[in-house]
Amino acid sequence: MKSDLMNQLKKVKLFLFDVDGILTDGKLLWDSNEKDFLRFFHIRDGYAIRLLLDSGYKVGIISGGKSNNVRSRFETLGVDYLHLGHINKIGAYEECLQAAGVTDSETLYMGDELFDIPVLKRVGFSATVPGATDEVKQHVDYVTAKPGGEGAVREVIDHFRLGNN
Amino acid sequence: MKSDLMNQLKKVKLFLFDVDGILTDGKLLWDSNEKDFLRFFHIRDGYAIRLLLDSGYKVGIISGGKSNNVRSRFETLGVDYLHLGHINKIGAYEECLQAAGVTDSETLYMGDELFDIPVLKRVGFSATVPGATDEVKQHVDYVTAKPGGEGAVREVIDHFRLGNN
Amino acid sequence: MKSDLMNQLKKVKLFLFDVDGILTDGKLLWDSNEKDFLRFFHIRDGYAIRLLLDSGYKVGIISGGKSNNVRSRFETLGVDYLHLGHINKIGAYEECLQAAGVTDSETLYMGDELFDIPVLKRVGFSATVPGATDEVKQHVDYVTAKPGGEGAVREVIDHFRLGNN
Amino acid sequence: MKSDLMNQLKKVKLFLFDVDGILTDGKLLWDSNEKDFLRFFHIRDGYAIRLLLDSGYKVGIISGGKSNNVRSRFETLGVDYLHLGHINKIGAYEECLQAAGVTDSETLYMGDELFDIPVLKRVGFSATVPGATDEVKQHVDYVTAKPGGEGAVREVIDHFRLGNN
Repeated sequence: MKSDLMNQLKKVKLFLFDVDGILTDGKLLWDSNEKDFLRFFHIRDGYAIRLLLDSGYKVGIISGGKSNNVRSRFETLGVDYLHLGHINKIGAYEECLQAAGVTDSETLYMGDELFDIPVLKRVGFSATVPGATDEVKQHVDYVTAKPGGEGAVREVIDHFRLGNN
Repeated sequence: MKSDLMNQLKKVKLFLFDVDGILTDGKLLWDSNEKDFLRFFHIRDGYAIRLLLDSGYKVGIISGGKSNNVRSRFETLGVDYLHLGHINKIGAYEECLQAAGVTDSETLYMGDELFDIPVLKRVGFSATVPGATDEVKQHVDYVTAKPGGEGAVREVIDHFRLGNN
Repeated sequence: MKSDLMNQLKKVKLFLFDVDGILTDGKLLWDSNEKDFLRFFHIRDGYAIRLLLDSGYKVGIISGGKSNNVRSRFETLGVDYLHLGHINKIGAYEECLQAAGVTDSETLYMGDELFDIPVLKRVGFSATVPGATDEVKQHVDYVTAKPGGEGAVREVIDHFRLGNN
Repeated sequence: MKSDLMNQLKKVKLFLFDVDGILTDGKLLWDSNEKDFLRFFHIRDGYAIRLLLDSGYKVGIISGGKSNNVRSRFETLGVDYLHLGHINKIGAYEECLQAAGVTDSETLYMGDELFDIPVLKRVGFSATVPGATDEVKQHVDYVTAKPGGEGAVREVIDHFRLGNN
């Protein structure tokens, strides 16, 4: 990561993530018990989020969906802000900033869809995954090497952790 | 995409898709509750289909299988035509054309199996996935870079959307 | 495929397959309803097996495991011989040959484990997958390009079908 | 594998493994029946563990999590030591050594997280997977070619088995 980009990353105090395609591989599996779709989360992303929380950083989730399995995952991890079912992501984004008492430039956001672009354009450090559409890639500071749901979030948090050492 | 192929794609008003191997990675997982096989759908394919529907294009599904989890996925997305359990795909294909009031040349179809060839040969724009057998690949206009169920449908719809801007 | 190997393949009348790692990607997922492990099967392997059965060839499964989800998959496909829970694969193998009335040289077997080697050494055409251990690869005529559970079986059957045209 | 590393590996009598990311691909899938996360295990890793047990070697699992599906998997395999829910891995590690009556240099451990480092530094042969963070890779003797949950454990056990022939 280039040094000016690393400097942007070092300023972050609030970490916000989209769910599908970022913290998952984008695959949806029908759960006939719940009449809802399941997602696959990655253990190494989850541990990286725990490391952030243990160090006192703020972490939030902003997702268009509102499945119980998504809620279970992030309540278990103990994230600070959990916004599910928010089609207007900017509204949820601003609530997170206010609650955390931080500015745009102290915020990181990872998202992969067209509706994530307004938030990606606001934050101090924006990232997406290799599978995102080119329209999204044009608006981010960093595209991860690892795919969504297979360590993309861990990759960015590791850059932050090691740059902060 | 070459310009003459792009011109064919630009004419499309009706988008028809096979399910297994195209809108899924082809994997089947037994669901002991339902006594049926589950599939993995991809969030970015789903969103691309929503974008088509929101822009007034017609979208249909023609699948040999007829699982409840397939029905749930595409009813949730709100597609116009849902033909499940149709071994004779040409019959379902012609019903879709009639309902949409379009011609072969205004129709796109994506399929990956031998029984998809009759439809692939009829439409204005035909596509398949990298994992399809060579016999199918010989009959299509376009083979996607992304695998089925991991963004193949999104790739084609993105070409259409961006070509139409 | 080299012509002498293709000639061996053309003689096959009985197709026998191991399950885990060959007709699946080797992954096991716990099913808390059934208190058993689930597998992922591939739609394109299944269709290739149907094409063989429709053409009058004999198809059998010889698996060490005996899960209900494996039974469901292959009963649905309508294979001729279904040997589950057979640790001694040679015994099940010989029962299949007798039932089909064919010789070793008219039989194909695909397997990926040490306990598959005795059968792999007997048949006229033996194949395994890229993920198999080297000890198995030393004993087969053909290693597929596609991984197990992602079209390895389809690849071999396509060679057979197209070589027989 | 270099000969001095192979010599370290040949001395191993006790094989200890972390679960998530090592014996799985790190993916977690919500199980609404059990209110718990499921993992994907690989058949070829499981068979390699059985080969070790059948040859009289000792095998143990040390995992931070304590899901029923993990317990089911390793009770089925019949491992000697099953330590689930142990955040302090060194404590569980030392219990395994005492029970097996072996020394550090006769022990192998595979893990992929920061909290695995204390154990990785103790054992005679330490290994991790390609997806592990660099901080872990710096402390191991060997990084597998195959990813976790897709044969990484099999790869190491195969080196051991074939080196011991």
